[in-house]
Amino acid sequence: MKPKEKIILALKDLIESSEMPSISTKNIARQANYSEAMIYQNFRSKHELMTSLLNHHKESIASIKDTVDKSSSLSSVKIKNFIKEIFRYAEKNYSFVYLVMFEPRDNSEKNYKTSLDEFNLSMEEIFKDYLKGYVLEPKTSRYPEDTLLNSILTFIYGQFNLYRLDKKKLPSLRLDIRLDKLI
Amino acid sequence: MKPKEKIILALKDLIESSEMPSISTKNIARQANYSEAMIYQNFRSKHELMTSLLNHHKESIASIKDTVDKSSSLSSVKIKNFIKEIFRYAEKNYSFVYLVMFEPRDNSEKNYKTSLDEFNLSMEEIFKDYLKGYVLEPKTSRYPEDTLLNSILTFIYGQFNLYRLDKKKLPSLRLDIRLDKLI
Repeated sequence: MKPKEKIILALKDLIESSEMPSISTKNIARQANYSEAMIYQNFRSKHELMTSLLNHHKESIASIKDTVDKSSSLSSVKIKNFIKEIFRYAEKNYSFVYLVMFEPRDNSEKNYKTSLDEFNLSMEEIFKDYLKGYVLEPKTSRYPEDTLLNSILTFIYGQFNLYRLDKKKLPSLRLDIRLDKLI
Repeated sequence: MKPKEKIILALKDLIESSEMPSISTKNIARQANYSEAMIYQNFRSKHELMTSLLNHHKESIASIKDTVDKSSSLSSVKIKNFIKEIFRYAEKNYSFVYLVMFEPRDNSEKNYKTSLDEFNLSMEEIFKDYLKGYVLEPKTSRYPEDTLLNSILTFIYGQFNLYRLDKKKLPSLRLDIRLDKLI
């Protein structure tokens, strides 16, 4: 494994091994068995490293979409399957939830905020793609498209936030019934 | 106004005046027109001050509940009205959303996490109180009580998270229709 990958993995392990992880370059270096200097040789800042891990998760989500696309021809089923797979992935990769829900607090974290915005846009794009098919289906659509998109994102982020507050809350109770009401 | 109240208000203004506020005792002091020493004479730490502002919001939410309780005898209507009033309050008080969605990142923020847990429990208690009446109503309850509680919290936190990402997203589109589907 290349040092760069090893450092990204060390950050992932650090986030996932503790309930309230202390994410400092010092701790990341210790986890990776490297010096702090080595971290800065590979990443300009802690937030660039966090962005790399976020992008790793983003690629995983994109490949989940590829699999889900083949699972059914019905958009409503695809949307539900995609949401289920995201939750399944989130359960196995808490660092994904942590990074997506990370709130940049000051200007030093501004670049990470941009990556976060990009991630959110990519999620919106995926759902918009599914919804295009959904509105063409015979089933009566009770919402206009943008409201439905908003409902889906609200549902996902709401679950993530409960998960963050209490790691036992995911997967959501009776997910199937709830998805049937949502879509 | 007492110095203590003035400092709490300064924190509120600081959070609400900037998109990515830099919450330091230095900046809070500047906002309040006090010295940093004055802050520490009134609060042991920044997080104790944050807890005071959170508790101020908690009291406002409790008084919202009192008003909502009188608005209808039907639990389902009360739940909906309460959610609407929470969103209305959140729109006017962004610091409420900021503090509720604040993610403690290390041990120095541990005490704030405890206050946050207490806040979440108090929210759960309010909804549990409403749901006790709800399950007695003639309308068929499609969910068991704990699933419904989870749905309500998911909905609120999901909206808060969208609001945090993009301050234009609250109030949710067609809130009435969405609440009718939820409850």
